[in-house]
Amino acid sequence: MRQKFADRMAQVKPSAMGDMMRAASRSDIISFGGGFPDPALFPIEPFQKIYQRVLAENGQLALQYTSGDGLPALRDKLAKRMAGVGIGCGREGLIITQGGQQGMDLVAKLLLNKGDVVVVENPTFLGALMAFDPYEPRYAPVAMDEGGMIMADLERVLKANPGAKIIYTVPEFQNPTGVSLDLERRRRLIELANEHDVLVLEDSPYREIRYDGEPVPPIMSLDTEGRVIHLGSFSKVLSPGLRLGWAVAPEEVIVRLRELKLAADTHCSTINMYVVNRYLEEYDLDAHIARLRSSYRAKKNLMLRVMAETFPPGIGRTDPAGGLFTWLTFPRGGDAAAMLRDRMLPEAKVTYAPGDGFFAVQPEANHCRVNYSCMSDEKIVAGTRAMGHILHDYFA
Amino acid sequence: MRQKFADRMAQVKPSAMGDMMRAASRSDIISFGGGFPDPALFPIEPFQKIYQRVLAENGQLALQYTSGDGLPALRDKLAKRMAGVGIGCGREGLIITQGGQQGMDLVAKLLLNKGDVVVVENPTFLGALMAFDPYEPRYAPVAMDEGGMIMADLERVLKANPGAKIIYTVPEFQNPTGVSLDLERRRRLIELANEHDVLVLEDSPYREIRYDGEPVPPIMSLDTEGRVIHLGSFSKVLSPGLRLGWAVAPEEVIVRLRELKLAADTHCSTINMYVVNRYLEEYDLDAHIARLRSSYRAKKNLMLRVMAETFPPGIGRTDPAGGLFTWLTFPRGGDAAAMLRDRMLPEAKVTYAPGDGFFAVQPEANHCRVNYSCMSDEKIVAGTRAMGHILHDYFA
Repeated sequence: MRQKFADRMAQVKPSAMGDMMRAASRSDIISFGGGFPDPALFPIEPFQKIYQRVLAENGQLALQYTSGDGLPALRDKLAKRMAGVGIGCGREGLIITQGGQQGMDLVAKLLLNKGDVVVVENPTFLGALMAFDPYEPRYAPVAMDEGGMIMADLERVLKANPGAKIIYTVPEFQNPTGVSLDLERRRRLIELANEHDVLVLEDSPYREIRYDGEPVPPIMSLDTEGRVIHLGSFSKVLSPGLRLGWAVAPEEVIVRLRELKLAADTHCSTINMYVVNRYLEEYDLDAHIARLRSSYRAKKNLMLRVMAETFPPGIGRTDPAGGLFTWLTFPRGGDAAAMLRDRMLPEAKVTYAPGDGFFAVQPEANHCRVNYSCMSDEKIVAGTRAMGHILHDYFA
Repeated sequence: MRQKFADRMAQVKPSAMGDMMRAASRSDIISFGGGFPDPALFPIEPFQKIYQRVLAENGQLALQYTSGDGLPALRDKLAKRMAGVGIGCGREGLIITQGGQQGMDLVAKLLLNKGDVVVVENPTFLGALMAFDPYEPRYAPVAMDEGGMIMADLERVLKANPGAKIIYTVPEFQNPTGVSLDLERRRRLIELANEHDVLVLEDSPYREIRYDGEPVPPIMSLDTEGRVIHLGSFSKVLSPGLRLGWAVAPEEVIVRLRELKLAADTHCSTINMYVVNRYLEEYDLDAHIARLRSSYRAKKNLMLRVMAETFPPGIGRTDPAGGLFTWLTFPRGGDAAAMLRDRMLPEAKVTYAPGDGFFAVQPEANHCRVNYSCMSDEKIVAGTRAMGHILHDYFA
């Protein structure tokens, strides 16, 4: 039996993300490894009231099958929010997905045939590679700097890979690096996508978690030829445990994504869609997001201050204007995964995400992703200091 | 842009299921078309209490990310239920899926390469074809009778298709026909699967909704070589709106399904898993299922009695020992889809599922699937009578 599906099985990478999630759940460990939002900020009391009311008033509908593309009332509200940032999709132009992650799976299922080229940031989101891998694409990585993808390198990559199918990008507060694409680069990205006839997959789970500077228009709002697919998520702004996100796409794509969503899992949890819909009716999501921003800004500033105070010189770090992560670059020869296993976990009781898993083609060992959103201030200080001690010793 | 993915887009069938779901939601229509459980039987009051308690006591965990394969406590309980029917998988041998539907998608993603043969019942579950289609398999249909797949025909099909990858079956109260495989056929199916080195995908969402006769052991419990994958679901026994099911598989398969689940959508709704776990701790699911059985048995008997009284002779129908459906066979030349469009919907205000969509290769027009689980007794009588009037007229 084995050999019959060995070809495809071999495509599925062992899950570094699964390992991180398991480590993050150990209570004696200070975890900077996951990408968890702060559970202390979940709107638990509003949700208690809303689940209660939804079941009392609409229980028979909320527990039943519903439309494959998601609750129409919730899609209406999302379409309105999208219109507010320049994406005029209407409710028929979006579907509700099982978090942002499912958007990537469905897009890959629709578009990718074996060997097709996906252009990715270098490094890129590990979850995206996991979603794409089963469809057996080739990856073409684009170099980045503090401003995200370097457009000259994107142009080089597109020229070197005629027929590339997708450019995948996390344009704000990228996972793992925390960097963002400015308006000028976004415009250039659209120009290049048009010129090389390639789709853009814009993955924006962190867009609203901005601390500094003005919002930049989504890439999709700059689209001139209907070639951008935009993914959003409630995971970072409300709760990841609801598993609700959305995908916006040009008409010819959204009709197919809708069918693929129905085929993949029928639809998202009906009751959770009712609950978020009601939350949006009765509560102020933007006020809630403002609280998240203010809390995460303070945590980020705290962590970067302790890093500045306690890290040895020569350790690079990004200073994100939003989102959940900073990205460390160790001196050449530093091995973040080995350091985690040999020193950080056993001695400092701290975990982070080693950077090698985020590179699609050529892993670089001397980076790690550090998350600051879900630990208390005390743990941020203690964990960052403990990292500093080990780093001093390691690079002495 | 279009031509780049036309090849794959062409694989995705227009969704007959989506159409049925939309028709079923119109309030002036008596719908026998969907596969909805009776919403009047949802445990709404217990769920009100449990969502409340889960949020009050475990809100920070229930709204957070969790393990990709699903809440361990819930997997423990499911493993115990599986052990009770002869499937000794343990909690590591199963994963929680987004309903039974996602189990099919993940299995297909793992196993099916373009052109691989999937052996299916003729007719088979439309949702399974939708899940498999994007992976571009070939289908090999096996003839059925009142006892399900005919084993001599399965043997013929396996001989004619060396290297077939999967035998897909709904062994109890099959969707769409309502028929079941007895123990002898199940044993023979395992023999044939072993002999021809093919996997068996056992899709069992209706197993516990049995009205008559003794439970038959799951095919997986008869497996001798670790080649059966078993799918279960809470959709029919608790609520489809939670989107929770499970997949049980041999070790070498489950480790890969676990990774693919994480890659597809991270995990199922955490809060819904907490709620079902708590329901299983504090309430008696088997007593709840006994109430469903008794209600659906009465509805099935009512519908078949009215069919016997009001249908013209020459209309075949199955008498299922469980599940949600009976399957009608009209005289040759009868066209169930045309009749639905031209007469049943406009005149009788009744809808059913035309049978042609359930045939993987060669559609047969003269069948339809009729659901009796989600309409009131009054509507069952009125709708079935109205169908009878049209049928008398149509076949006069």
